[in-house]
Amino acid sequence: MALIVQKYGGTSVADIDRIRHVADRVMRTRQAGHDVVVVPSAMAGETNRLLGLARQGADVPSDRESDVMASTGEQVTAALLALVLDGRGVPARSFLGFQVPIVTDASFGRARIREIQAAALRAALDRHEVPIVAGFQGVTADGQITTLGRGGSDTTAVAVAAALGADACEIYTDVDGVYTGDPRMVPGARKLERIAHDEMLELASLGAKVLHIRSVEFAKRYAVPLHVRSSFVDDEGTWVVKEETSMEEISVAGVTCDRDQAKVTVAGVPDRPGVAAMVFGPVAASGIVVDMIIQNASADGTTDLTFTVPQADHEKARRILEGIRTQIGAAEIRGDLDLAKVSIVGLGMRTHAGVAARMFACLAAEGINVQMISTSEIKISVVVAAKYAELAVRTLHDAFITGP
Amino acid sequence: MALIVQKYGGTSVADIDRIRHVADRVMRTRQAGHDVVVVPSAMAGETNRLLGLARQGADVPSDRESDVMASTGEQVTAALLALVLDGRGVPARSFLGFQVPIVTDASFGRARIREIQAAALRAALDRHEVPIVAGFQGVTADGQITTLGRGGSDTTAVAVAAALGADACEIYTDVDGVYTGDPRMVPGARKLERIAHDEMLELASLGAKVLHIRSVEFAKRYAVPLHVRSSFVDDEGTWVVKEETSMEEISVAGVTCDRDQAKVTVAGVPDRPGVAAMVFGPVAASGIVVDMIIQNASADGTTDLTFTVPQADHEKARRILEGIRTQIGAAEIRGDLDLAKVSIVGLGMRTHAGVAARMFACLAAEGINVQMISTSEIKISVVVAAKYAELAVRTLHDAFITGP
Repeated sequence: MALIVQKYGGTSVADIDRIRHVADRVMRTRQAGHDVVVVPSAMAGETNRLLGLARQGADVPSDRESDVMASTGEQVTAALLALVLDGRGVPARSFLGFQVPIVTDASFGRARIREIQAAALRAALDRHEVPIVAGFQGVTADGQITTLGRGGSDTTAVAVAAALGADACEIYTDVDGVYTGDPRMVPGARKLERIAHDEMLELASLGAKVLHIRSVEFAKRYAVPLHVRSSFVDDEGTWVVKEETSMEEISVAGVTCDRDQAKVTVAGVPDRPGVAAMVFGPVAASGIVVDMIIQNASADGTTDLTFTVPQADHEKARRILEGIRTQIGAAEIRGDLDLAKVSIVGLGMRTHAGVAARMFACLAAEGINVQMISTSEIKISVVVAAKYAELAVRTLHDAFITGP
Repeated sequence: MALIVQKYGGTSVADIDRIRHVADRVMRTRQAGHDVVVVPSAMAGETNRLLGLARQGADVPSDRESDVMASTGEQVTAALLALVLDGRGVPARSFLGFQVPIVTDASFGRARIREIQAAALRAALDRHEVPIVAGFQGVTADGQITTLGRGGSDTTAVAVAAALGADACEIYTDVDGVYTGDPRMVPGARKLERIAHDEMLELASLGAKVLHIRSVEFAKRYAVPLHVRSSFVDDEGTWVVKEETSMEEISVAGVTCDRDQAKVTVAGVPDRPGVAAMVFGPVAASGIVVDMIIQNASADGTTDLTFTVPQADHEKARRILEGIRTQIGAAEIRGDLDLAKVSIVGLGMRTHAGVAARMFACLAAEGINVQMISTSEIKISVVVAAKYAELAVRTLHDAFITGP
């Protein structure tokens, strides 16, 4: 007998019929002799509806009160699933963030879990109830409601699994696992049976929407076996697991593409100490997250600073820099939205030499110009013109995964 | 400077525009120098939508989980109003049942308030914030969410006003006060300036929808001055106040009509001790609330027992009685749904003799047959055929209120 935490995403609880299917699966898992804890998301679209209502209420709605509103989405699905199970004779009980409690810091809208007290959930399991823990929400030490940010229900599930020492955390979603590439873009993409936490972390941070990045961090830190699978079919999905030696035999586990990229260039600034701080200080202070940065020294004692930001922050970043342009002595501020970031990820890069060189050669052979490069121990990302995005992904997938 | 609790009903917070109007009124009250605590209902229709979803989930949905779902309606409006005020520079903070806390018993769906701890609300007022207390909801001593039943936000507001020792509790609704009769039925109906708690209690229990009956009980017990008024206009509404001697000068304060009545007759039962207990025991055990009861002795040693129930319980009551018909020796079970209960209410009945006789004479003069009668110290109710309901109300309103 195992203890399994099952998290169901928004499309898996989108309406009463889907919720009945979730109840079926919970009951089958119980019948197989396991204890189950369920973590549902809000019905698909509900969080957006609630936050849209908040934005109608105020130009810059209070984060604290937005969280009070947004948390109702998961409250409804948790209670609804509990009463569907209860109606079929399976004792079940909803737990909201404050009832578990799932204690977080007070960063409304993107709170971090500090502690999950497992006693109440354990008591429910001891009574043979199915605890249904509302995803996405927590409570501060002084009793205020928080939410964990987009995809936060994944993190709720993994954190609950860690707190209970669960045998597995199953993430049910509308895709049936983690793929070597986006199947809509790469016809040859195949589902991975296993992937290491670190690879999954890179994929998640590179725009793969399948798992919330913090949930993977949690799973890694507390060694929770994660199983990403579809709630629409019964096939096994992808296990996100502790790194194993055999994983390094494959150099590249996946190819990703992130189109939510914009580039800002501060051209012709004097090449002297402190200029980068003058540029990035105000940008960071306004809450904009800068991803890649490159600096090209030119002959005349000036330099170009180029960096990427999410597209939504592009205008804001340009306005900030225009405001300080004369002060920093820059000639011009330029922007570019027609970009994509294409990345390859794999533990094998640590041991397989020459992966980067081979990547650049593949792209060059197709005439794709690389505008920016960033690397980590297990990934290489390049920025290319948006029009080359699909070609780059397919080329790299063919070279590193499908063939030769 | 006064402390005023303002409760806004579902039509007063039906959409973002109406909520902005509520914010306007709260701000005007603050500008007049008063402290304000607001208690919003759910947006009109939202509670029904949520409970409908619960009924889709199970034939007999868990009361506990239904409350978790239903309470989200007020959670959303409380947070939305808080962020609208906050967006206009008025510090405001939502308080859910568990955050105040509003401690109730564990009768899910119709919980009763046991205690309201005022410290957190007082602290918010001391910080010059507007506390927005979600109506309708509470929390049990062990942290489970409860709701107070239909109209429960009225009770939340009055209980909060009592706990804070507020100077007044304003109930904002879509009517501009308490009328001597339903204006849709009685053209001459007029708004009462003042009404005593006991009169309001009778009116509320007789089908006047303007106030939740328990809110009036609370207001009476804790001497909270209640002001029922419209959120759509600025006119004064009706004050529900402590009884004053002058109120007895008017014999009848209002005429009401309740069409949600059904009659069940157990005909031809042996007229011996214990029969009534055999009839009403099983009916009460099934949770059906019986209102009026009459028993007619007949010549042959048998009797007819007739009682009224809400229309929704009519079929259930008949089925229960059919099941025990032979056991109690009854000849027949009959039902009737074409009924209305018409009542007159007034403190003056205590001192004005002959009100009942005059009431029956008025009805008889119009050819209206009285089927059942029930009285209290300050009200007389009669059951008549549904087709006579309007005529009866108008006749009694003319006789006791408009003229002579």
